Amino acid sequence: MVRVGYPARIDASLLSGMPVGAEMVPLEAGLDHDVNLDVWIPDALTPRAKEIWQHLRGVKLVLSLMAGTEWIPETVGPHVTICNARGAHNVATAEWTVAAIFTSLKYVPLYCEIQASGNWKRRKEAAELFARLHPDEGAIYPPVMQEELAGRKVLMVGYGSIGKDIERMLAPFDVELMRVARTARTEPMVQSVSELDALLPDADIVILILPLTPESHGLIGAREMSLMKQGALLVNAARGPVVQTDALVGALNAGRIRAAIDVTDPEPLPEGHPLWKCPNLYITPHIGGSSPRFMQRALKVVAGELERYIQGEPLENVVQAAI
Amino acid sequence: MVRVGYPARIDASLLSGMPVGAEMVPLEAGLDHDVNLDVWIPDALTPRAKEIWQHLRGVKLVLSLMAGTEWIPETVGPHVTICNARGAHNVATAEWTVAAIFTSLKYVPLYCEIQASGNWKRRKEAAELFARLHPDEGAIYPPVMQEELAGRKVLMVGYGSIGKDIERMLAPFDVELMRVARTARTEPMVQSVSELDALLPDADIVILILPLTPESHGLIGAREMSLMKQGALLVNAARGPVVQTDALVGALNAGRIRAAIDVTDPEPLPEGHPLWKCPNLYITPHIGGSSPRFMQRALKVVAGELERYIQGEPLENVVQAAI
Repeated sequence: MVRVGYPARIDASLLSGMPVGAEMVPLEAGLDHDVNLDVWIPDALTPRAKEIWQHLRGVKLVLSLMAGTEWIPETVGPHVTICNARGAHNVATAEWTVAAIFTSLKYVPLYCEIQASGNWKRRKEAAELFARLHPDEGAIYPPVMQEELAGRKVLMVGYGSIGKDIERMLAPFDVELMRVARTARTEPMVQSVSELDALLPDADIVILILPLTPESHGLIGAREMSLMKQGALLVNAARGPVVQTDALVGALNAGRIRAAIDVTDPEPLPEGHPLWKCPNLYITPHIGGSSPRFMQRALKVVAGELERYIQGEPLENVVQAAI
Repeated sequence: MVRVGYPARIDASLLSGMPVGAEMVPLEAGLDHDVNLDVWIPDALTPRAKEIWQHLRGVKLVLSLMAGTEWIPETVGPHVTICNARGAHNVATAEWTVAAIFTSLKYVPLYCEIQASGNWKRRKEAAELFARLHPDEGAIYPPVMQEELAGRKVLMVGYGSIGKDIERMLAPFDVELMRVARTARTEPMVQSVSELDALLPDADIVILILPLTPESHGLIGAREMSLMKQGALLVNAARGPVVQTDALVGALNAGRIRAAIDVTDPEPLPEGHPLWKCPNLYITPHIGGSSPRFMQRALKVVAGELERYIQGEPLENVVQAAI
C-alpha cells in the first residue's frame, strides 16, 4: 500500500474515487507526532500545511490541491516530486474573469453605491462616469448608463488552459480576440509576448492569465499602462507580481485605465494600502478559483495522479521533479 | 417629402442613414409653436416628448426609439400608428442579464463592500454568505468564496428576441436551459407559461424577459417565490409589475431567494422604499437597455421603418395600428 496523507477536514465521502492501493491517512490540524507517508496532499491553508510538514517522514510525492504551488519547493526541498491540481480551478477562474469584465463594463460598483444610498436619481452618475472614462466620445444621447462587451477588442496575455476557457466563454459576445504567450503559434494565432507593446494600444480589455515566472514578473508596468487606450480595462486573473503595483496605483489615480484584479502585490493587501482607494478598480481577495465544486474537481485530478504513481506511470502535472 | 420630426439633440451625423424622401425636422426642447409633421420620432425622455406633442399637427406615424412604448397610445390617441425600435435594446439588455447573474453568483456587492472597508480578512464573509444562502450544503472545505454558473439550471420566462440573445450568451457556460412563453412550441422546446409552477422548483436561476401584458402583470408573487429553490436567483430584465413587489420584499427579507432587478414597481423606486434595503438583492435603475451604441441601432431600425412607410410597404414593428 502507498500511504497518502490528506487534510482530515476533507469529507471522507469525497475520497471514494481514490485508487485501490492507496491507504488514506487523515492528518489533523495541530498534528503533534511524526507520521510516515509516501504521498502528501497538503492542506489548502499554507500555514497549516507548513506546520504539518514538520511531522511528516518519508514523503516522496506532494500532490497539491491547488494550481499555485509557489510555497511548496522551499518547504519540502528538492528531493520530493511536486504535482499541482492543474485544471481544478479553470472553470471558476474563467468565470471570475468574465464576471470581472462585466462588473467593470456595467458599472456594478457604482450601482451598488447608488443602491446603498437609496436614491434612484443618482443614476445620472453613470453617465458622468462614462464621460470621465471616455472623454473623447463627446456627449452621447441618450446618456450612456453602462458599456457593452460587444464589439470590444480583447487582448489575452497568456494562453494556457484557463485562457482557452475564457476564450470559449467570450465567444458569443461578439468580441475580437488577440492573444500573446511565451511561445508564438498559429491556429489560433498566438503572438509572442514580445509583441505586447504593439498590441496594447489596440485593446479595450487586457486579460492577464499567464503563470508567474521570472519573465512575467513585473511584465505590466508604467510604460505598458501608458500604451493602453484611455479607459481600457486591465484584468489580472494571474498573480499579483505580474503587475507593478505602484504603476497601477498611478495609472488608476490618473484616470488613465481601469482594472479588475483578484490578486495583488503584496498579498494579502494590507489595510491602508493606496490600492484599496483607487478609482475605477474592482478588487477581490484572491477568490477567483473558488467554487462549491472545487474539492471534487481537485480530488479527481489528485486521484488520477495517484493512480499513475501506484502503477509506475509518468505523472501528468509535475511542477518539480525530485533530484 | 415626408416630414419627420426628431429630437434636435440627436447628432445630425447619425441621421445619414435616413431614406431619401424624408425631410428631417429637428424639434428643440421647449418648442413653443405648432409644427406640421407626418412622422414623429419622440424624445427618449417621456416628459419632454409629451410637452413637444402638444405642438405637433398632422402626425400619422410615431416611430419610437425605445422598445417600451407604454406612454405613447394614451398621449397620441388611437388614430396614430405607433412602431417601436424592436431589437435596438437587445444586445445591451441581454448583456445586462448575464452581468446581473454574475454579479449575484460571484458576490460582487459583498466584495465591493469589502474593498471599500480595505480589510482583506473580511473575505471570510463570503463563505458565511454562501452558508446562509445554501444551509443544506453543509460545511464545504475549502470555504466557498463565490458560486459558479456552470451546472446551474436556468428557467427563461419569455422567449422573444432578447431571450434568444440571452440563451446564445449563456451557451458556453454549461447551463441547463428551460423555457416558458405564452405560446408553447418545440425546437427548441418552449413550454407554456402555465407550466411555470412545475418548473420553478427545479431552477437555480429564473430570468424574466417577457412583455408586460394583463397576463404577465403580477405573474411572480408570493406563491411562485415559495416554489423557488432556497437561495435561487430571480432576475427581472422585463418590467417591474411582472413581479409583486411586496412578495419580493418578503421573500428577500426571509432569506428565501435572491434577486437582481433592473426594473421596479413603483418606478422610479422612491427613497425610503423597503426594497432598497433588502438583502441578497442587486438593483439597477432601469439602465439595462442602455449602450453607447444604442442611438445608432435605434436609428437604423427607425430608418428601415421610415423607408417602408415612404414606399407604402407594411411596417414591421407596429405596436398600435391607427383606427
